[in-house]
Amino acid sequence: MPLELSSADADFAARFATFVEAGRETATDVSAAVSGIIADVRQRGDAALFELTRRFDRTDVTTLRFTEAEISAAKDQIEPDLRAALELAAERVRAFHVGQLPADHDAVDAAGVRAGWRWSAIDDVGIYVPGGLASYPSTVLMNAIPAKVAGVRRLVMTTPTPGGEVNPLVLYAASLAGVDEIYRVGGAQAIAALTFGTDTIRRVDKITGPGNAYVAEAKRQLFGRVGIDMVAGPSEILVVADSAANPDWLAADLLSQAEHDRVAQAILITDNADLAARTAKAVNAALDELDADVARESWARFGAIITVGSLDEAPALIDALAPEHLALSIADPQAMFARVRHAGSVFMGYRTPEAIGDYLGGPNHTLPTGRRARFSSGLSVADFMKRTTFLDCSAEAFAAIGPAAARLAKAEGLPAHALSVTRRLG
Amino acid sequence: MPLELSSADADFAARFATFVEAGRETATDVSAAVSGIIADVRQRGDAALFELTRRFDRTDVTTLRFTEAEISAAKDQIEPDLRAALELAAERVRAFHVGQLPADHDAVDAAGVRAGWRWSAIDDVGIYVPGGLASYPSTVLMNAIPAKVAGVRRLVMTTPTPGGEVNPLVLYAASLAGVDEIYRVGGAQAIAALTFGTDTIRRVDKITGPGNAYVAEAKRQLFGRVGIDMVAGPSEILVVADSAANPDWLAADLLSQAEHDRVAQAILITDNADLAARTAKAVNAALDELDADVARESWARFGAIITVGSLDEAPALIDALAPEHLALSIADPQAMFARVRHAGSVFMGYRTPEAIGDYLGGPNHTLPTGRRARFSSGLSVADFMKRTTFLDCSAEAFAAIGPAAARLAKAEGLPAHALSVTRRLG
Repeated sequence: MPLELSSADADFAARFATFVEAGRETATDVSAAVSGIIADVRQRGDAALFELTRRFDRTDVTTLRFTEAEISAAKDQIEPDLRAALELAAERVRAFHVGQLPADHDAVDAAGVRAGWRWSAIDDVGIYVPGGLASYPSTVLMNAIPAKVAGVRRLVMTTPTPGGEVNPLVLYAASLAGVDEIYRVGGAQAIAALTFGTDTIRRVDKITGPGNAYVAEAKRQLFGRVGIDMVAGPSEILVVADSAANPDWLAADLLSQAEHDRVAQAILITDNADLAARTAKAVNAALDELDADVARESWARFGAIITVGSLDEAPALIDALAPEHLALSIADPQAMFARVRHAGSVFMGYRTPEAIGDYLGGPNHTLPTGRRARFSSGLSVADFMKRTTFLDCSAEAFAAIGPAAARLAKAEGLPAHALSVTRRLG
Repeated sequence: MPLELSSADADFAARFATFVEAGRETATDVSAAVSGIIADVRQRGDAALFELTRRFDRTDVTTLRFTEAEISAAKDQIEPDLRAALELAAERVRAFHVGQLPADHDAVDAAGVRAGWRWSAIDDVGIYVPGGLASYPSTVLMNAIPAKVAGVRRLVMTTPTPGGEVNPLVLYAASLAGVDEIYRVGGAQAIAALTFGTDTIRRVDKITGPGNAYVAEAKRQLFGRVGIDMVAGPSEILVVADSAANPDWLAADLLSQAEHDRVAQAILITDNADLAARTAKAVNAALDELDADVARESWARFGAIITVGSLDEAPALIDALAPEHLALSIADPQAMFARVRHAGSVFMGYRTPEAIGDYLGGPNHTLPTGRRARFSSGLSVADFMKRTTFLDCSAEAFAAIGPAAARLAKAEGLPAHALSVTRRLG
């Protein structure tokens, strides 16, 4: 049974606070295992990759890299309407991300100092795509397209092929997105290979993409040596609904998050107790209809229905939850959005289910989970670029501001800093 | 003696590659000690802070928070010209960072889908400022000003006061920059307090600022639970000079980085062997003049003078080193900048020493070290904000793109995703 809360209850504040703080992330300590894998790959390179792949993916890989022939053959295995859907998604996601290309800046201020910044793409990027059950072509598009829009010159993808199984959709999505190299390797060993390089896989500068606990821990351990995107936890959705919302639609929205993971979370906030009851019933009916094992467990363990006296109470609750996905199934979503501070991505109105954004709305579906929308953002083109600032003093500008710099340097006990200024002041 | 390399040498490529790969970061494993400190602060809160401060900072702190009176008294302890210099720095850094405020986006595409993003400030931010020798007011300005420009509503600073010593410049810089609360606590215990909160220090959403190995390890361990800025290693400068550059100025430039840290690095690249020799001599003279212990060791252990046949060779060497600071003491710095891909910040021409940028040029002095300019950027206003994307489908737009989303959801084995679309297609 999902949690049921009403803001009319005397203990609502305390119960809601407990709900907000309850972690869903598993605390499995894989750090020792991951350190070992990283050290092994760093030392033995490809030999370690072959051996670890045999062990973890139960498959005897003879060549790590997918051939051009394998990649183009994937296209023919996909039904035409599905291919068209994937192509539409790639096109729409690309168009949205092109709009994110950041602008350079170059200006001279009143003192005569020229200053600004210039953006440039990261040279070599690796994207990790999970294998098996969670091997999604949409993951490929959402990571690879912003990288290529940014101008990444070499985009490498790694994906495990457990039991030798390859998802042709993942390969086709990679070729649609412009991925340059694809390797059949996964887990912490893939992250280590991308970081240190092996004879076969040349190292990259940054790694993005979701993964299991081993992948996440490897990224955490190598963070700083290589760029990484973010720590990702289990997914969540918060649906805010008014009396005009359709309970059957809401049920599908809630379950579309719950079906991702046994520790995913789906939450409904509504000001209408009748809608709450009808939606709870619709969720149960949909669970039976879909025979959805994972969603059933997630909804029972982590789901919640919160009834409020007025939707005016919603913004504070939303901000406390800082949800990855916020669906506003209400008459005036824009007004509510204006009052919300923390959310990864917002789906506005009755006709914008999150699934549209998962595939082809345009915005990235890689979003901050576990309340991290308080301080971080979804993946974007800028994550595949870096900014170089610059400063250029004219002789006059230098004469005007140099003395203050020298004064501060002396005060900080940095005499060579001061000297670099005073010698030029002459 | 610094390393001397010439691109004319037969083994240059190999020696340069070794030089690029040589790490300067110490591998002291403080992770167990830091885990212990974090657990202690998480469990015992303020009591742990008092005890750890007594142990590590050798000072008996009775109240953690600086009072308004203490902060305003700091101002009077600073000589007027120094105060004016700090005020000029704050003003110039603020003006530059205001230009970094990112733009929102809101547009309807040809299919009728409205999509975009909205930036908002992070609510609560903590900045860490080292104490003791490396207690710099410029650190305060460079972290606090972008946070306040971003719109952070509560900006908290922590800084240790080893032996009870307080730097009035640091307090005054904090009040100039608009810091809201200041606490006398440092080390991993400060990072833990900012992350989990204690009775006295309310927790924050993100932490930025430099620190020693303990601070860095605490940030690494808590990364994801709280936002953090970046992994920072020892500082470095790469100076590119032509025959018209002044060896005495170059010597000061090189040492202004070397004086930061025994493992800082200063590198000169020039096409003029005579300038190289004269600069080496000028460095030694300046070391004697300044009696600079730290700089002497850094220059001897990690310094390098690289002579090239032509400055055309420089861009490839610069990109391989991806320096934190790149000083272009050459006639046409703009042309060289156009050919460089990886650098944290660039100082253009003979009259722009890095020290100007350290204090009051405008751009941030918190920059990626240790070749991380390949994949990351200096601190900016956007680091104190997050981006919420949004999607809004009209009924027509939904009818047009919905079926493709449902098709992809089915192909990914996510039936509730598909259901959330098909139920609305009706």
